[in-house]
Parts: sequence; structure tokens; C-alpha cells
Amino acid sequence: MTQDINKLLEKLEGLDFENLYHDDFFHTWDKSQDELEAIFTVADTLRAMREKNISPKIFDSGLAISLFRDNSTRTRFSYASAANMLGLEVQDLDEGKSQQAHGETVKETANMISFMADTVGIRDDMYIGKGYKYMKDFAEYVQEGYDHGVLEQRPHLVNLQCDIDHPTQAMADLLHVIHEFGGIENLKGKKVAMTWAYSPSYGKPLSVPQGISGLFTRFGMDVVLAHPEGYEIMPEVEEIAEENAKKYGGSFTKTNSMEEAFKDADIVYPKSWAPFAAMEERTDLYAKGDQKGIDELEQRLLEQNKEHMDWACTEEMMKLTKDGKALYMHCLPADITGLSCEDGEVDESVFDRYRDPLYKEASFKPYIIAAMIFLQKVKDPKATIEKLIEANKERLVDKEDENK
Amino acid sequence: MTQDINKLLEKLEGLDFENLYHDDFFHTWDKSQDELEAIFTVADTLRAMREKNISPKIFDSGLAISLFRDNSTRTRFSYASAANMLGLEVQDLDEGKSQQAHGETVKETANMISFMADTVGIRDDMYIGKGYKYMKDFAEYVQEGYDHGVLEQRPHLVNLQCDIDHPTQAMADLLHVIHEFGGIENLKGKKVAMTWAYSPSYGKPLSVPQGISGLFTRFGMDVVLAHPEGYEIMPEVEEIAEENAKKYGGSFTKTNSMEEAFKDADIVYPKSWAPFAAMEERTDLYAKGDQKGIDELEQRLLEQNKEHMDWACTEEMMKLTKDGKALYMHCLPADITGLSCEDGEVDESVFDRYRDPLYKEASFKPYIIAAMIFLQKVKDPKATIEKLIEANKERLVDKEDENK
Amino acid sequence: MTQDINKLLEKLEGLDFENLYHDDFFHTWDKSQDELEAIFTVADTLRAMREKNISPKIFDSGLAISLFRDNSTRTRFSYASAANMLGLEVQDLDEGKSQQAHGETVKETANMISFMADTVGIRDDMYIGKGYKYMKDFAEYVQEGYDHGVLEQRPHLVNLQCDIDHPTQAMADLLHVIHEFGGIENLKGKKVAMTWAYSPSYGKPLSVPQGISGLFTRFGMDVVLAHPEGYEIMPEVEEIAEENAKKYGGSFTKTNSMEEAFKDADIVYPKSWAPFAAMEERTDLYAKGDQKGIDELEQRLLEQNKEHMDWACTEEMMKLTKDGKALYMHCLPADITGLSCEDGEVDESVFDRYRDPLYKEASFKPYIIAAMIFLQKVKDPKATIEKLIEANKERLVDKEDENK
Repeated sequence: MTQDINKLLEKLEGLDFENLYHDDFFHTWDKSQDELEAIFTVADTLRAMREKNISPKIFDSGLAISLFRDNSTRTRFSYASAANMLGLEVQDLDEGKSQQAHGETVKETANMISFMADTVGIRDDMYIGKGYKYMKDFAEYVQEGYDHGVLEQRPHLVNLQCDIDHPTQAMADLLHVIHEFGGIENLKGKKVAMTWAYSPSYGKPLSVPQGISGLFTRFGMDVVLAHPEGYEIMPEVEEIAEENAKKYGGSFTKTNSMEEAFKDADIVYPKSWAPFAAMEERTDLYAKGDQKGIDELEQRLLEQNKEHMDWACTEEMMKLTKDGKALYMHCLPADITGLSCEDGEVDESVFDRYRDPLYKEASFKPYIIAAMIFLQKVKDPKATIEKLIEANKERLVDKEDENK
Repeated sequence: MTQDINKLLEKLEGLDFENLYHDDFFHTWDKSQDELEAIFTVADTLRAMREKNISPKIFDSGLAISLFRDNSTRTRFSYASAANMLGLEVQDLDEGKSQQAHGETVKETANMISFMADTVGIRDDMYIGKGYKYMKDFAEYVQEGYDHGVLEQRPHLVNLQCDIDHPTQAMADLLHVIHEFGGIENLKGKKVAMTWAYSPSYGKPLSVPQGISGLFTRFGMDVVLAHPEGYEIMPEVEEIAEENAKKYGGSFTKTNSMEEAFKDADIVYPKSWAPFAAMEERTDLYAKGDQKGIDELEQRLLEQNKEHMDWACTEEMMKLTKDGKALYMHCLPADITGLSCEDGEVDESVFDRYRDPLYKEASFKPYIIAAMIFLQKVKDPKATIEKLIEANKERLVDKEDENK
Repeated sequence: MTQDINKLLEKLEGLDFENLYHDDFFHTWDKSQDELEAIFTVADTLRAMREKNISPKIFDSGLAISLFRDNSTRTRFSYASAANMLGLEVQDLDEGKSQQAHGETVKETANMISFMADTVGIRDDMYIGKGYKYMKDFAEYVQEGYDHGVLEQRPHLVNLQCDIDHPTQAMADLLHVIHEFGGIENLKGKKVAMTWAYSPSYGKPLSVPQGISGLFTRFGMDVVLAHPEGYEIMPEVEEIAEENAKKYGGSFTKTNSMEEAFKDADIVYPKSWAPFAAMEERTDLYAKGDQKGIDELEQRLLEQNKEHMDWACTEEMMKLTKDGKALYMHCLPADITGLSCEDGEVDESVFDRYRDPLYKEASFKPYIIAAMIFLQKVKDPKATIEKLIEANKERLVDKEDENK
């Protein structure tokens, strides 16, 4: 069901999003409602173009730099897909192969890898207080490099996950929800349960619950954040969520009961994360090089997790949701009870029933990233898209008309 | 000596190969005679186009996913070359950098890396009963992802080596033979010695002797499979070879004498491999995590190999072949006596004399892979090639006319 | 300040550089004055084209092979940038992932990775007597592969740093100097201090001081090579520098006093390197597999370095230079006192003052590499560039006119 590109472009025309142009993307809450809608609209447009075999390439050459401080499959491939679709080649800064250890500063690295870079995607979610700071510094240094004539073009940043937000995930999640519920106008009053769930692994990032809390509260939904005591997220993100709820006519509530959150929920997002305070402690221990302290903390957290093994998205729990049929969401990979671990976040039968929607949820991420880059680089997106459609360059030569 | 593209296209017109379109490539024996000839013909055509500086690019963007479970130079570069020639960018699923260890299923990985993928090349040859199965599962899951609307396009698979067949190698080998003997029609009655040879290393895959046995028996040649007792290949592949021989008017015989195989041979392919039964045992030990058992098996196999050090392609052995001038073949890298090891598969002087043909043999692999992808993706290859030639887009701008 | 492309093309017209076509680039001293000027001119032209959003792509497809035997950020990204700008995709020969250890020869590797390769960039600077030799062998083997019909095109080599020269660095450095001093005609009589400086690390390559000595002496400058006794560079490069000075009307002098070198210098290039004789010793120890000997040598060299901690580019030293304002240069990353180490090559305040020029210096490397490849591949560069400008293909569609 390819979407109607003309309608999408009409929608785009009514939005005010000029500030996305030549700006970085750090957190969803830095952006206006219209700006977020513009990203969703361009993402849908790029997808429709691809489905109609129209090449959305805007670059004839150029590099998309990626910098991952953690293992990654999904985000790595999503970023590579987005870059490739627009005509950029991914060049990965593999820190193992680089000379960064040799006392090189962030300022120097930022300039040295950006000579031909149009976009930089960074994932740095491991240490509280570090990831976002690194991105801000990086962005400042490439701006300086551009201003001082070192760089011919200023690459813009896409936050591929930091310690605070995970905007490409949260926006892909929301675009999925918009499609599932038949439009952004249908989200008002829907209940979303963003809840903690038990996992046998340790230290999962906070950026997903924080990203969901900071974004989903902007569309009139009733977002319930549920977790056992001691698993708080960052207070500053809670504040953002509360303000959003006030401003956009939804609600943001907290509870220590998973059942309460699931009750009549339209959407459930059960997922493990580490307590914010513990992650701060870990960051300090890491800074001190205290490996023993880190190991002890890990043991302590694993023990603490075990006290909450009843926080799981079971078939019983799903029955509590609206008509027993809430939309189950996850950023993947999930810890699936009986499949990937003995006791995990979700029952295998629940996960299996939602496999298609889960994969569709993930399928929006490349388009969200591509739309972010597109809107950073193109001054008049509507005009440029119309020109690309007019040119009608085939993505695959002589492709059969399967999707129409 | 660039081939005449018009003649190649004429040939293509006479072949029935429509089933290659939108299908995966697992084993040569899944495909009809016409289908294999179509691949050879398109491979030759793509080479001729490149030699004439005509770009054969059919994709404006898109990803070629590679998934290698073993070290690789040749296959990696061949696949990258094929992808690049057609306009795809290689994105490697480096399992070390991915989250696959975290309990992710094949179904999930298959979908997560395929959002923009047009082709997937997998090399998984290490464990008997695993590699081909993995590829089949992968193909099934991306088909499901496509059917369920997760993927906009269905990437097709190219088997870059599994536990059973090595189709891109065997077909590159055969295309080399076709060129050396001046045409596919000249292969009838030629004697091919696919023989085991001694190597000081352990556990070389069976897919090459199996691939050659399963493919070369289809062109009226007399294929002799020679190995010491205990170095049997998979019985199901022997059956395929026997049926081929019957059907296509050649022969498939087995012997435990290297001399008998070399006697009057037109082509010799001496190469080490591990016994099938031992490889099955190793797979079981691996599944049980029995490292001690694996180490003991390795020692036993190395000892067993040493009993057959006389299985070597020496100058003496070469004299037994047709006029002493059989075409020597190898998938490379070879274990060369006195160069890469004390005692190996082949005398240095023999290897050196055949260096040019050996490298030419390897040079066909990128074109075989590209032809496989081309025929999977293009509905009417003749029409599309004619269109590309008509467009006459230069691969290198203003290139001098060296090859014509 | 985008340069005037017409003037650059006029300049190009007056130069004799046809021997660059289809030849490798090993050392700057293999090339004539006109040839080097042609590279500078094409580098400036490619930069101006990019600044004007005109795509300089000459390849529709093709691979740029990279082969790094050492960690690298800058050179890796510079090479990738250059390749991408011209339309080539980088394919890295990661020796860890390859089968080279399995007794494969350089001849075989050279052919196996070059089937679709248009250019090969090699960095191999670790062992005296090895790096350049490896590159020469590689070039010979691909020529042979091309002559014998294995390869359709002959990839040409770019030396990305060997044991003797570092031509892409030295030429980027010189192009920076040309821009800083307002033209190649203004270099005559300028004093350049290429001096050793203390670093707490061990065994830094000689290719930078050698590259600078071999190149900067060709433009009428007074090059002073300064180092403590025992830190000699290769005698054959000193000879080249001396001959250059005679031929081109500058001078090449040596001293064991950093002060003498800095006195009234227009340009200072203080940088650590290992003594040539010690590096030869290390190469021998490595060949013998004598790890104990290598460790002892390292300790000895670190001790020896410590005797010369006063060789540092301090504020005091900078005051000795012409008006206290010599252009400070470095190939980066530098060992910065108080930032990356306790005592290093340069004071933090000096380094900080020169950050912009240092990053600009580095920014020329992608263009130097691209110009080398361009001139290896394009027979009539002026005509081809004019054609590209005529075609006026945008690098980024609908880009705003920022730079003009």
C-alpha cells in the first residue's frame, strides 16, 4: 500500500520546519511539532518513492561517517541504508583501527574525518553524562572547522543513541504507531505503557524509555511509565514528559505496578533498563578505572533485577490490555523467555504473535534517518522531491511494477 | 580479445532461463542446463561491456549484504567487485560487531539487515549440515518479510560457499575451462581428474570437490574423483554426479589411485579436503562444546593425512596427463611444496607454469556472481543489456580505447 | 575563497606531465617539477569544483583498494574521501580477515584483489627496506596480470607512506605552504626547519622528515634538517635533498642544534622520529623473530630519547623564528606537552595557536590523493575537467550557493 506522494507533499507544504535545515539532530524535544511531522512526512515520501522505484538520491558523492561505541546490527544497517539511499558512502570510524588512543582530541578527530563528510551518525550510549556531551562537542568542532575554512561543507549530526535520548528509535516507533492507528490524528487518548521488564542481562541503556517518554507525550497520548522502585529514569527527562503532557493535552504518569500500566493499554513497550543512579555510579567507577567496583556493581544489579522477575510481558499480562490486543512494541533484540533466555522480558508466544508488527516497526528506522539527513541538507524539500519525481530515475533499471 | 556482445545476446535469446528471475542460487544442480548457460553468457557479456568501458550498472542505489563465517580474500573481493559493478554497495555483517550473540534469531537478523538489501551473499562452509540449512532458512525468512510487507524488496541469495556446494567457484572454474577449450561444445569426452592432494593443514572444506563433481559431470566430460580410502565426499553429491553423467552422456568414476585419475587427463584439479565422516564428527563435537574432542580429532586427521603425502601434483604426475599438458586448476590459495609449506598439494614448478591460467580462472568469479545477481533481478536481460549498450554510459570518463 | 578554475586550467596547459598517465606514484623525487605542479593544480581544481558543487566523478563504478599495515585515521579517511569523490568504492584488504597468512604470495594477492580495482593505496612504513619494496613488487605483479589478460584494467599505486617517503603527506604539506605564502613563486629563499623533537613514544617513522627533505628542497627553499646526534635519516634521501638544493637553487643543511634550525625560520616542522640505524636493527631483529632483542632495543631507544627532552617546540623556541611567527607544521597527531603527554613535541599553547593552519594542512591530503589518481587515469585532464564543468552535475542536488 504505497502512500500517495502528492498528498504527502501537500502536507509538507503546510508545515514550518525551516530550522531543521543545516542543524543537528540531538533530541526530539529540541524540535517543534511541525519539525517532527516534517520528518515523518519525508520518511513516508522516501519510502513511497522507493516502492515506486524512483531513486531518491540527492548526493552524487559524499561520505556518511559512522561512529559506534558499542556493538550494533540494526542501527548500523539502518544508517548504512539511509546513507546509501541518498547517495552517500558509509565510512566507519573504527576506533580500534584509528590513532585516537594516541592522545588525539575530539576536536582533531572531528575535523580529520569530516573533510568530505556530509553527515555523521554517532552512537554513544554507554556512560551517563558522556554520550550527548561527546556529540555536542563534535558538532561544535565541525562547525568551527567549517567557519574557519578547514571543511568545505559542514557535516550535520544524527544522534544514533546517546545516554539521554534515542531519537531515531523513538521516531521510528512513533511512525509505526501512526501507521498502525491510521494517522497521527488518531493518537489522542491512547494509553501507552512504557514499562520496565526483567532481563538476565545487565546495564541496558535508558535511552529507549527516556526517548519514548519524551516523544510519545507530545501527541495527546496517556503515557504511563512503570518500573520497580529503584529503576528511575533521568529526572530531567521526566520533567520534559510532564511538560509535554500539559502542553499537548495528554498525560504522563508513573507507577510501580506493571499491571496498572498494562490495564486497558492500547500500546505496551515492556523493556529492561538499568537504574539511572546505578549507571551514574558505573560512570564514576569507570572514570576511576575501578574494575573491581564495576564488577561488584554488576553483581549487585543482577541480584536486584532478580527480585523483579515477575515484571514480564506474559500472556496473562497481555489479557489486561485493551481487548487483550494492545500493540506490543520493542526496539529489539528482546530477551524472550524460553528462546533467548530462561526468564526474560516477554513470553515467546506473545513475541511470536507480534513478529510482523515488530519488524515493521524496525523497518521505519532507515527512513527516519534518511529523512533527518534530507531535511538537514535540502533547503526546499518539496521542490527537490518534485524534481526527483519529475526526473524519474529508476532505482533498479527496468524493474517490474510489483508494488503498484 | 573482447567477446562479441551481439553474438552473446543472440545466444541468450535461445535459452530458457526465466526461473532464475527472483529466485535464490543455492546449488548448481537446482538449475537447468539453459539456466547455467544463461549465467555463463551474461558473465561473458558483463566482462565484454567492462572491457569496452560501458557501465553495466543497473542499480542507482541499494545494498549487497555479505555474511562470511570464515576468513576470505578472494570471495570477499569477488563479491564486492560484482556488487560494485552493478551499482550496489557492500555492507558486511561482521558478527563480531553485531548483537547476534544476544539471542537473536536468524529470522530476526535476516529481516533486520535486509531493509534496503537487493542481494545477500553468504559463505558458511565450516560445519556439515549447517551452512546450506542456514541459507535456506535465511531465504525463507526474507521471503516472509517481503510477503508480510516488512521489506520493500526481496533480496535474493547467492551461495558463496556452503557445506555442500561452492557454486560461484565451480562455475568460474567451468567458464575458465570453456574459454580454454574454445567453447562449451568442445568439453564432451574431456577427462577431468578431481583428486585429493596432501596438505599439512586440516579440515579443508568439501565444497570444492563436491561442486566440481556436481557441475562438471553435466557437460559430457569424464570426471574421475580420486582420493585415498577414508576421504569420501557426501554420498548425496556422488549420486547427483552419477545421474548427471547418465543424463548428459559423460561419466563419473571413483578411484583410490591418483595415477589412474591423472592418466591421460585433460584437466587436473588436485586439492586437499577433509573426510566427510570426520567433518560430521567435528560438527557433533562442536555442538557439544567438546574442545578436547575437537583437538584430538584434529591430531588424528593430521596423522591420517601424513599417510598420504605421496598424493601430490608433482612434475612426474603431470607427465601422466594428456601430452603431459593437462590444464592444472585450483581454487587458490594452494599449498605449494617448498614455497608455502615443506610438502603440499603441488610442486612449485608446476604451480608456477600455470600461474596465468590459475589467475584467469579466479578472474571469472566476480562476473559469475554479477551474472547471478543480474539474472535474479532483471526480467528481460537481453532488453536491459541492449538498453545499457545503447545508453553507452562510460565506466571511466574519456577512457582510451585500449582493449578494442 | 574558491580558486578560479579557468586560471588553474590555463596553468595546467603549460605543464608537461604526460608521464603521470598510467604510472604509479612511489616517491616525489621520481617525478619532474612539472608533474608535481600538475598534481597541485589538479588538486586545487578538484577542490574548487567541490566548492562550486560540481561533481568531479570520473568513474561510474570501480574499486579503490586500500592496504594498511598500521593503524590510521587520517590517511584512511583521506584515501576514502579521494576515492569517493572520483566515484570509486573503497575496499579494504583487512589482513586479519584475509587468507594471506596461509602462504599466499604477494603476486597472488595483488592479482586476486585487483580484478575490478582502478587504484591501490598502500601504507607500509614499519620496516626499513620492506615497505617500498612491497609496493614495487605489487605494482610489477598487477602490470604482469594486466599484460597477461588476468586483469581488464591495471590499477595504479599510490604510496600512502612507505619506509622511505610519505609523498601524499609531503605534497599536502607543500600545497598548504604554497597557499599560506601566496604561490609557489614566493617560496624561494624561505627557511624551513625540519627538526627532530622529543616524544615519549618509540619508533615513529622516518618517512615524514625524509619526505619533507626530498620535496621542500625542490622549490628554492633553505631546508635545515636538525636532530640530535644519532638520529640520522637515510643517507640516500640526504643525497637527494642535496642534489635538489643544487639543481633548484636552494640549500640543504644539517645541524645538531634545534636553536640553529629555528633561528629566523619561516616554517618549522618539529617532529619525533626514530634513528635510521636503530630502525634497521629492529627490522633485522623482527626478521629473526627476536622479541627479546626488540624489547631491549625499545628500552634503549626510549632511554636515548630521554636525553633529548629539551628538543621541544616551546614558546621560547618559537620566539627564535622569523618575527616569532614561523608557520608551525605537523603531520598529526602531535605529542602535545601537558595535553597528550607530560613532555612532548610541542607546547600546548603553540599547538593551539596553530590549530586552524594545522587542520587546513591536513585538508589538502584528500585532494592530493584524488589528483594523483585523476592524473594516473585521465589522458587529457584539461579536456575532461572542462567536460565535467560543462556537464555541471551537482554533487548535492539543489545546494545553496554558499561558497561563492
